[in-house]
Amino acid sequence: MGLIVQKYGGSSLGDPDKIRHVARRVIQTRKAGNDVVVVVSAMYGETDRLVGLVDDIAPNPDPREYDVVVSTGEQVTIGLLALALGELGIPARSFAGWQVQVKTDDDHARARILSIDTERIRAELARGAVVVLPGFQGIGSHGDITTLGRGGSDTSGVAVAAALQADECEIYTDVKGVFTSDPGVVPDARMLSSISYEEMLEMASLGAKVLQIRSVKIAQRYGIPIHVRSTFIEEEGTRVVPEEEIMERLVVSGVTYNRDEAKITVQAVPDKPGIAAKLFSPLSSSGVVIDVIVQNVSHEGFTDMTFTVPRRDVPRALPLVEGIAKELGARGVAADDRISKVSVVGLGMKDHAGVAGRMFQALSDEGINIEMINTSEIKISVVIEEKYTELACRTLHDVFGLAQSEAVEEEH
Amino acid sequence: MGLIVQKYGGSSLGDPDKIRHVARRVIQTRKAGNDVVVVVSAMYGETDRLVGLVDDIAPNPDPREYDVVVSTGEQVTIGLLALALGELGIPARSFAGWQVQVKTDDDHARARILSIDTERIRAELARGAVVVLPGFQGIGSHGDITTLGRGGSDTSGVAVAAALQADECEIYTDVKGVFTSDPGVVPDARMLSSISYEEMLEMASLGAKVLQIRSVKIAQRYGIPIHVRSTFIEEEGTRVVPEEEIMERLVVSGVTYNRDEAKITVQAVPDKPGIAAKLFSPLSSSGVVIDVIVQNVSHEGFTDMTFTVPRRDVPRALPLVEGIAKELGARGVAADDRISKVSVVGLGMKDHAGVAGRMFQALSDEGINIEMINTSEIKISVVIEEKYTELACRTLHDVFGLAQSEAVEEEH
Repeated sequence: MGLIVQKYGGSSLGDPDKIRHVARRVIQTRKAGNDVVVVVSAMYGETDRLVGLVDDIAPNPDPREYDVVVSTGEQVTIGLLALALGELGIPARSFAGWQVQVKTDDDHARARILSIDTERIRAELARGAVVVLPGFQGIGSHGDITTLGRGGSDTSGVAVAAALQADECEIYTDVKGVFTSDPGVVPDARMLSSISYEEMLEMASLGAKVLQIRSVKIAQRYGIPIHVRSTFIEEEGTRVVPEEEIMERLVVSGVTYNRDEAKITVQAVPDKPGIAAKLFSPLSSSGVVIDVIVQNVSHEGFTDMTFTVPRRDVPRALPLVEGIAKELGARGVAADDRISKVSVVGLGMKDHAGVAGRMFQALSDEGINIEMINTSEIKISVVIEEKYTELACRTLHDVFGLAQSEAVEEEH
Repeated sequence: MGLIVQKYGGSSLGDPDKIRHVARRVIQTRKAGNDVVVVVSAMYGETDRLVGLVDDIAPNPDPREYDVVVSTGEQVTIGLLALALGELGIPARSFAGWQVQVKTDDDHARARILSIDTERIRAELARGAVVVLPGFQGIGSHGDITTLGRGGSDTSGVAVAAALQADECEIYTDVKGVFTSDPGVVPDARMLSSISYEEMLEMASLGAKVLQIRSVKIAQRYGIPIHVRSTFIEEEGTRVVPEEEIMERLVVSGVTYNRDEAKITVQAVPDKPGIAAKLFSPLSSSGVVIDVIVQNVSHEGFTDMTFTVPRRDVPRALPLVEGIAKELGARGVAADDRISKVSVVGLGMKDHAGVAGRMFQALSDEGINIEMINTSEIKISVVIEEKYTELACRTLHDVFGLAQSEAVEEEH
């Protein structure tokens, strides 16, 4: 008895049979007495097809026209899902982004949602209809079509839930929920029944690609519970909720890894004020996102400055860095893309001392050398040689008892 | 030095290369000093793909949601063409139907255009941009997306030209222009340099599928010259213009045929007032469009009533007709779908007596039996056995000197 927003991703909407299956899931929720608003992605592969057409015609497209083209995929699915619901006897109505005034800023191809007009949505719910909305799209201040960037449909789903003050936003996807680690790497990884917004933010940004990070931030700000679950099975998935609602308090909730980064070291820079700014300002101006930065104490007036960048940006970043290094009088620049970043995430770290020590000791016991370290309140990341990624994840998953917790639960 | 509206069909926009080719044609017209507004169809095959998806999910779809889905094809092409123009250095901007308020009635899937707001279009033209608009789509009175029915992009093109009081509406397609007959059936058919609206209306409705009939009516009402021409060659095509602007006055301008009809005869009906109404009202209520109707003088109080319907409607029409025939006391009902309707069209008929006589004699000389006859001011149609279609077309094309006219022109 409430208002549920359900978001379905492209893999849940890959063909007419899958769309019918989604319609049946929507109807289940509605028959349980809930009002339902559905937010959908484009059919699987469709956005890639549209982006491919744009790429063929304009490698550096006018972002306004790019949005006109790529936003059509979601318009197809809203209509098809509304039709599928109608065929099953459930009144349904679709609205494009402009029809319910999903207002965004004017930053085409990566716009941010500012507001959503809920009047028409509520009117349709009041007459007993299911409302079907497109993810990913909105309109800018001049009434132009905008899109939110790849993966933006999660954000649309949570934003719609926030605008409607929904009881829950269900994110339906092709995985069961959020796991303690990548099951492909750590075989005894288990699904978490709940996780806090804070932990989810760290997990998502670290590469556990279940939920778009922006959507978690919106859910946190507006206090909307997210339920990540599978389209294809009935079982519940993982609830992303405020910290105080977490039942099962673990010191560490997850172990994640990221192999998409490379490490660049500027060797023996004269240690003077302002060198960090001189190095990193040109990089960010050129659009290179820097992740971990480590600067050690200097020796005899020289220091090494090491940082990580996305691997694909190395060809662009390296010449820039080499130019600056020369200006700064550094000895040289070294790049290494055979690295991996492994992180443990957990709210419990705030209260439990010694997590970092246990992590470093465990890696050392396995002969894994730590090249860089970076910490936040609820996360510790280390950069290691790429070939040790799986070993490091499995070791840390064991050390922090993530697999056993399930066994304990099962005994109840 | 004027304002030209150009409409490109799906076969002209089949892939990125063709879209680039269209962009170059647009630029030619613009570089000649014209403002250009382009109206585009969906990429070749795309509307069929979308209709197929709808069919799979809902064989009898809610027309509102049908329109949401099938209108996306044109949104893709407006964006892609605007991008292609941009790549070639020409500023261009696309607008969806709702963005320029292409207002229609609420008759989804076959809506009629009521008005178009030209303010944004004119503003973009004034700043030197090419404006790219989608054919086929509009918005209804409640702001819902509507579509005009298959082939509706011609209508959109002419309606945009009318709203802007453009100097000409160019309809780009994959044929060179309007021919005196189907070149596949009549090898010496030749292209007409001009044809009147009235003749074009008869030609289009009779199956010379070059232009959507609704678009010709709008062009006639607002006095917009249409220029039907090929996307793929430079030569001019056929201008559809007011009668008084036709240079080359022929008695007959074209010979057309239609093999998509079937003939139904109600045999020996008691000839009483009101039988026609009793027969045809239920048919039109059930959506069957009746074309030619012939009723002969009665013999001894009984008459035969013969009419044609689209061939695909026979399974629906026949049981209806049989029921009514029984009620009316008719002897029986016979259906025949091996027929063809062959017509000659020409404004010249108004002033030249004897066209019908020459037509009937020519067919008789070839041993072709005429089963039904129907005439209007500028058209004579006969229903014959289907197998004689090609022979009848070639014979009439010869008799009315349609091929020779070209020879005469060439001697000048």
